Amino acid sequence: MKRIVIAPDSFKGSLSAEQVATAIANGLHRVWPEANCVLVPMADGGEGTLDACLHAGGERLRAEVTGAGGSPVTAEFGIVTRDGKRVAIIEVAQVVGITESSGMSIPVERRTSHGVGELIRRALDLDVREFLIGLGGSSTNDGGAGVLTGLGAEFFGDNGQPVHSAPAELSQVREIELRGIDPRLKECRITIMSDVNNPLAGPRGATAIFGPQKGVTPHLHERLDHAIANFAGLAETAFGVKAAERPGAGAAGGLGFTLQLLGGEFRSGAEVVADLLQLDDALAGADWAITGEGRTDLQTLLGKTPHLVAKRAGRSGVPITLLSGGIDRKALPELGKTFAGCFSLVFGPTTLEQAIADSAGLLADSAEQLARLRVFSVGAG
Amino acid sequence: MKRIVIAPDSFKGSLSAEQVATAIANGLHRVWPEANCVLVPMADGGEGTLDACLHAGGERLRAEVTGAGGSPVTAEFGIVTRDGKRVAIIEVAQVVGITESSGMSIPVERRTSHGVGELIRRALDLDVREFLIGLGGSSTNDGGAGVLTGLGAEFFGDNGQPVHSAPAELSQVREIELRGIDPRLKECRITIMSDVNNPLAGPRGATAIFGPQKGVTPHLHERLDHAIANFAGLAETAFGVKAAERPGAGAAGGLGFTLQLLGGEFRSGAEVVADLLQLDDALAGADWAITGEGRTDLQTLLGKTPHLVAKRAGRSGVPITLLSGGIDRKALPELGKTFAGCFSLVFGPTTLEQAIADSAGLLADSAEQLARLRVFSVGAG
Repeated sequence: MKRIVIAPDSFKGSLSAEQVATAIANGLHRVWPEANCVLVPMADGGEGTLDACLHAGGERLRAEVTGAGGSPVTAEFGIVTRDGKRVAIIEVAQVVGITESSGMSIPVERRTSHGVGELIRRALDLDVREFLIGLGGSSTNDGGAGVLTGLGAEFFGDNGQPVHSAPAELSQVREIELRGIDPRLKECRITIMSDVNNPLAGPRGATAIFGPQKGVTPHLHERLDHAIANFAGLAETAFGVKAAERPGAGAAGGLGFTLQLLGGEFRSGAEVVADLLQLDDALAGADWAITGEGRTDLQTLLGKTPHLVAKRAGRSGVPITLLSGGIDRKALPELGKTFAGCFSLVFGPTTLEQAIADSAGLLADSAEQLARLRVFSVGAG
Repeated sequence: MKRIVIAPDSFKGSLSAEQVATAIANGLHRVWPEANCVLVPMADGGEGTLDACLHAGGERLRAEVTGAGGSPVTAEFGIVTRDGKRVAIIEVAQVVGITESSGMSIPVERRTSHGVGELIRRALDLDVREFLIGLGGSSTNDGGAGVLTGLGAEFFGDNGQPVHSAPAELSQVREIELRGIDPRLKECRITIMSDVNNPLAGPRGATAIFGPQKGVTPHLHERLDHAIANFAGLAETAFGVKAAERPGAGAAGGLGFTLQLLGGEFRSGAEVVADLLQLDDALAGADWAITGEGRTDLQTLLGKTPHLVAKRAGRSGVPITLLSGGIDRKALPELGKTFAGCFSLVFGPTTLEQAIADSAGLLADSAEQLARLRVFSVGAG
């Protein structure tokens, strides 16, 4: 019996990774009703990471925490058991997501990642000491200050007055008091899932690179960057750790900085998800693998999900085919070194809107065609 | 060494069948530099038939004959040798083509197929006695009267005055005189290439069905249909043959009628081209075949070129894949019974114009992907 591993990323704006994998399996089963399709829906640490990580089981939980703008939000998180240990899966976008309207209605200089700290505490209360934290899609640009206050740190100003973690106030911080920080954090292992490698501040920092899409105007830019740098210096002193210049410190508006102060280590989100879902075990001895994403281009080869899946398939000697929403033909020569064929789900000239409107049907039909082509092998030569 | 037969139709408005086949071969050679790609550019009796038939050799000739509107046109035709016999390939569109502007500038009731008869005579002068005549793309609606006058027949009216073969005058014909018709026609075998099966006149006839695209207005319709019916009755009497009700009599504005009076027999254009190019010999023992066309839909399964090629590949036990410009997904369930995969040349949402602008590049890239997928076979099971 054929065993086929289907390990796509989500098709952003269209289908979750699980929906993509299911549609592909439906198409393959039309040709091979008996095929054993192993679904490994992937994610890269951004949107969809929680769903992907819970695909193979685990608890899906909810907690009410402070949203980016100050009003409460209900955030989902997950707990899975790995090697006998409970592991929390946290997507910061669940708390401070850039698509979350109540947070986005508040100016960026007032938004804080405080709720992310609260959410980590909830998991600590559930006897979790291992965290996988996905940093994609945040609306905050607070240098990660909020996550520290959410975990019990206190900020004080010139006259000892308490100062808030929002970036509008960070320039007033003169002292950071860690006495109240949750002591259980010392026992924790934190994995930060992100492919961003920007430093915290400066011309390649969070404010400069990711600020504009969060609402940082040119007028605000310098003030916020300085406020964050001020906070960062004090925080490094308080923790006795230098992290502001490390690659990734600028991820998620600076959460990449403070989570590193807390001992967090960066890893590619796709690698983490692949390990958690035991992709290598699924691939071992498989006949074929299929991966894909909404749109594939040269960026894909710099470590995006399909590239990671392909690398692992290659290690297992499993041929892998790419089935994406669309493919930039300029990438084909490079992709050809990795993939046993790169295909789009469309069946002719069409609009993006039409392709999205029926992407599950298109995926199933396309996967069916791939299977029909693979039924026959070309004579040896 | 792999042997792959590439037998597509042309991509109308974009590439000739030979260009399509060459582009596909280019893509396959990137994966299999040693592959023996056998190019069999196909046609269905319409535009491109002459080019396809001459692909394997033969003479390409030119003759100046009377165009549909009366002014001279230079028509290409071909002569190939088959089983030791010289065979003429004639596309009526070369003489009375619907894209030929001098003919189309004359009203449809004045256009005649006279030049087609002249062209047949030129071939007779070259010691040809076997004809393959493709009927696609004509601008005339003269009941095929012109081809008879072009071959030497004469039409007379009430007072014995000569009458012209244009439909505007056909209602005046009272007598058809065949004395002057070329006697060499008796020795000829004429194969009519067309997939049309309409009768000559009436509600399913040439004027009703194909007239409008040639410029027959509702006002003209009844008059032309009657004129053709009048001519047809006299012609049937003169030849002693009934043909107006036969399927295909209405093809090419009635050329399907008069060519049958001359002993012509209908055959699917794709079948004729396939035989001429010895497609079966090419397929015997091949590892794989690829066919395609500009756009594939349910019509394709009613005998269009890719379907014919697939039928023959099936008889030879050769898996065949469809690579078209676009595919109507509604046809996929039926196509799946015939093809080892149906693919479009596009790599994502795009416009028809963009796909046409780089169709050769897209075809090569797509064929390369098919080859990469076929390099690996899925484990038996």
